[in-house]
Amino acid sequence: MREGVIDQQTAVQRVEPAALDQLLHPMVDEGAKAKARSLGEYLTTGLPASPGAATGRVVFDPDEAELRGRDGEQVILVRTETAPEDFHGMVAAQAILTARGGMTSHAAVVARGMGKPCVAGAGALRVDYKAQELSVNGRTIKHGDYITLDGGTGEVFAGRLPTVEPKLTGDFATFMEWADTHRTMGVRANADTPHDAKVARTFGAQGIGLCRTEHMFFEGDRIDAVREMIVAETLEERRAALAKVEPLQQGDFEGIFEAMDGLPVTIRTLDPPLHEFLPHGEAEIEDLAKKMGIDPAKLKTKIESLREANPMLGFRGCRLGIIYPEITEMQARAIFKAAAACQQKGIKVLPEVMIPLVGDVTELSAQAELVRRVADEVMKQSDQQIEYLVGTMIELPRAALTANKIAEVAEFFSFGTNDLTQTTFGMSRDDAGRFLPLYVERKLLKDDPFQVLDQEGVGELVRMGTERGRSTRANLKVGICGEHGGEPSSVMFCHRVGLNYVSCSPYRVPIARLSAAQAALGDSSRDK
Amino acid sequence: MREGVIDQQTAVQRVEPAALDQLLHPMVDEGAKAKARSLGEYLTTGLPASPGAATGRVVFDPDEAELRGRDGEQVILVRTETAPEDFHGMVAAQAILTARGGMTSHAAVVARGMGKPCVAGAGALRVDYKAQELSVNGRTIKHGDYITLDGGTGEVFAGRLPTVEPKLTGDFATFMEWADTHRTMGVRANADTPHDAKVARTFGAQGIGLCRTEHMFFEGDRIDAVREMIVAETLEERRAALAKVEPLQQGDFEGIFEAMDGLPVTIRTLDPPLHEFLPHGEAEIEDLAKKMGIDPAKLKTKIESLREANPMLGFRGCRLGIIYPEITEMQARAIFKAAAACQQKGIKVLPEVMIPLVGDVTELSAQAELVRRVADEVMKQSDQQIEYLVGTMIELPRAALTANKIAEVAEFFSFGTNDLTQTTFGMSRDDAGRFLPLYVERKLLKDDPFQVLDQEGVGELVRMGTERGRSTRANLKVGICGEHGGEPSSVMFCHRVGLNYVSCSPYRVPIARLSAAQAALGDSSRDK
Repeated sequence: MREGVIDQQTAVQRVEPAALDQLLHPMVDEGAKAKARSLGEYLTTGLPASPGAATGRVVFDPDEAELRGRDGEQVILVRTETAPEDFHGMVAAQAILTARGGMTSHAAVVARGMGKPCVAGAGALRVDYKAQELSVNGRTIKHGDYITLDGGTGEVFAGRLPTVEPKLTGDFATFMEWADTHRTMGVRANADTPHDAKVARTFGAQGIGLCRTEHMFFEGDRIDAVREMIVAETLEERRAALAKVEPLQQGDFEGIFEAMDGLPVTIRTLDPPLHEFLPHGEAEIEDLAKKMGIDPAKLKTKIESLREANPMLGFRGCRLGIIYPEITEMQARAIFKAAAACQQKGIKVLPEVMIPLVGDVTELSAQAELVRRVADEVMKQSDQQIEYLVGTMIELPRAALTANKIAEVAEFFSFGTNDLTQTTFGMSRDDAGRFLPLYVERKLLKDDPFQVLDQEGVGELVRMGTERGRSTRANLKVGICGEHGGEPSSVMFCHRVGLNYVSCSPYRVPIARLSAAQAALGDSSRDK
Repeated sequence: MREGVIDQQTAVQRVEPAALDQLLHPMVDEGAKAKARSLGEYLTTGLPASPGAATGRVVFDPDEAELRGRDGEQVILVRTETAPEDFHGMVAAQAILTARGGMTSHAAVVARGMGKPCVAGAGALRVDYKAQELSVNGRTIKHGDYITLDGGTGEVFAGRLPTVEPKLTGDFATFMEWADTHRTMGVRANADTPHDAKVARTFGAQGIGLCRTEHMFFEGDRIDAVREMIVAETLEERRAALAKVEPLQQGDFEGIFEAMDGLPVTIRTLDPPLHEFLPHGEAEIEDLAKKMGIDPAKLKTKIESLREANPMLGFRGCRLGIIYPEITEMQARAIFKAAAACQQKGIKVLPEVMIPLVGDVTELSAQAELVRRVADEVMKQSDQQIEYLVGTMIELPRAALTANKIAEVAEFFSFGTNDLTQTTFGMSRDDAGRFLPLYVERKLLKDDPFQVLDQEGVGELVRMGTERGRSTRANLKVGICGEHGGEPSSVMFCHRVGLNYVSCSPYRVPIARLSAAQAALGDSSRDK
């Protein structure tokens, strides 16, 4: 290597993937910052605890943050410091600002875990909960006033400043191309809409590794039909309600296939528990009952009967499609009709239908059989051949342990490491806020396992599941679609255990590309 | 073997362990049955779907069953047949009676899963939901009338008949002694009180494998102190509240040590989430606030803040003791002071302190250090040596996967296969009623994994955890304390993977003893 000159490979090896993170989050517009400074709107700079920019009204009380956040209001939670009991307010806020605490303080760890902007330890800040105001460098900001913060730089401003979306251009783009020449593992994105799919493509995603279909049951008017379906008492009623949703979902899939022309799209069938689609407030239930022309008391009983003690471990995932095969059928029909329609327009479609929450191969067999039957029907009706795969999420320990059997049916695996982390640790992500940040602070765990893949436990299941799966099906395509797919050390681990691809949020695709390149370079330097 | 004569060994091999089940549940008194028959109170006989006897008022509506059951009333849910949406009512009822369905019908499977008496498919029964009555062989029983059923024989009677507790005497006792001569694996019982401990001993338990301490926080007045502790805002307040509970728990432990004189007692430190100790109804919260002299609104906020999305995966188990070490400290002090007091009275005590819900060795290290420090203190103060062990439940997949590390600290393992089944399958026992019985009915799963250990998945973790644990600590004592510890095929599996003991409910101890004997005989016949 010539002195002073870094070759491409060395450049790729030297850049910290995490350093790209700042370039990949919304930032406060630099021009607006300068103007705000000149107008005296700059307040202070704290620690850049979690990147991203956010604007919102100042709220000091976590309960209020939760209440307002639930109503769709944008608030920023400001605290001297945060504690586990503030968690619900942090979830609801756009961003978090604290006066005390370091880069590993409760606020910082929780915010990074949620991918939420945070400025921590802004020492000049004085929070007066009683007066409901904060003072900083002689300036007073009252409860309800707007502020803007940049978690990538730690800057805090009064008022509402415009934010800019990140772009992959110029030197950054060139650098990413260098990285790609070394990379051997694929990088896909998790995207649920044509818009997200397009963003993912501009960031270099080589396909969609996880397209969730939940929103296709929620959006616009279709939620009414979905609720009819849930409340229905007979198969005929359920089918009638689903028939209303089918053409709409077909349209959704066409949009995504179009955006991903030529690249694979992994579609996960319905996953969340049905009660998530039903209203829970008294007034909303009355409303819905009126709309559906049924007795409100009866509807309330139905909703009550669907309530679960532990929804995360309840009637969801493929369990829905097993008990109500008509749901999976409807989704499969929407997928393959969309594929046929797109193909006729000259778009290259590669659908991969993914069955969630499989614990035993029998569940996958039942659902796969149904999907393949519907595919056959649609191909016959449309007189077209569609290239497709049927596979499964591996997100339960039992699926990883019995992967050899599951691979007899599955054409691909995608490790859902979010849920796999929850079940392997027996730790609900929604509830871990009360103890997990303290675990990290006190070094009981090195990292938050929901951010950084736990290689020793969860990773052991990924390794074992991949090995066992390929023992039955040698060419099994294996990916990962948990949030770890965009975290550098986790991506490198995935490379080491031989995964075919990682899939992550669109904005993290460049981080995954660079991490995968570094992992491949690590291999070749070891080979020397 | 001589023709016509069955030797002891063959007798032990021939008796189905499950057949003992009927002998080990409360039964309707035979004399009372005869009298009832003579009085025309016999109604019908259905399938003996789940053993045990129960008396209660007839209720037809699951919602009503739930409501009345919650108020402590004894009701029997009578349905033409049951469906998943009746689950909440089945949980609340003393027993279930159906007119239709076989031994694997929804009612039968669910009832066996819950260990609740059930008579299914009583074909002579006509249920009239509208009139709120049932008719059978010309007799009408109205809503609210008492009936008695025997799930071991399928008999149903009008009125309230006395039931008898099972006893281990005569031929049965002799037969069990034969079994024990062949058995190599230990059998312990899960018992939380001196009474249960005594019952367990009479059934031949060789120790307590699981003594839960939850009730020691609930009973009598102490719940007030526990609530004070939970609501406390400072360490001092928490310690003051715990100090009130300590002598009471010490008394509890003394009673148990006394009952188990000479046998080991495995005590699990506090496990359930704290919100389980708090009231949830408006009126009860008002009451408690008054008692504690605090603002009801503030108490309500505190209770709200403790609510969890998935309590099963939340702030419980050793996570409590890590964040509030003073709780574990109090329990350890109560245990060792009780041990010292009993020893001074000449009772032989062998306490084994078991830390629940460990996922990483660091959690166990932190808790074990604390327990050992307290043990040292008590031994010094009381000038006595106490023989004791510190170990852990293995009830999370991660604990089994990292068992080699955990065994560096743990002196014993006890597989908590109830929770391990929940996390391995990603299936909440409380919520599985909606789909699991249908899975079994449709043969997606051969058995309910909460009743019969899933050898392929959960069992794989038991096997792996044992092997990895002993790779670090060769003499590691390993047991199982889930309900599977009393299920024949599961007990045999435990023998095969080399566990030292199984622990089950007192009434299942003879079943476990026989199963373990058969497993050992299976080995020796294979050896020939």
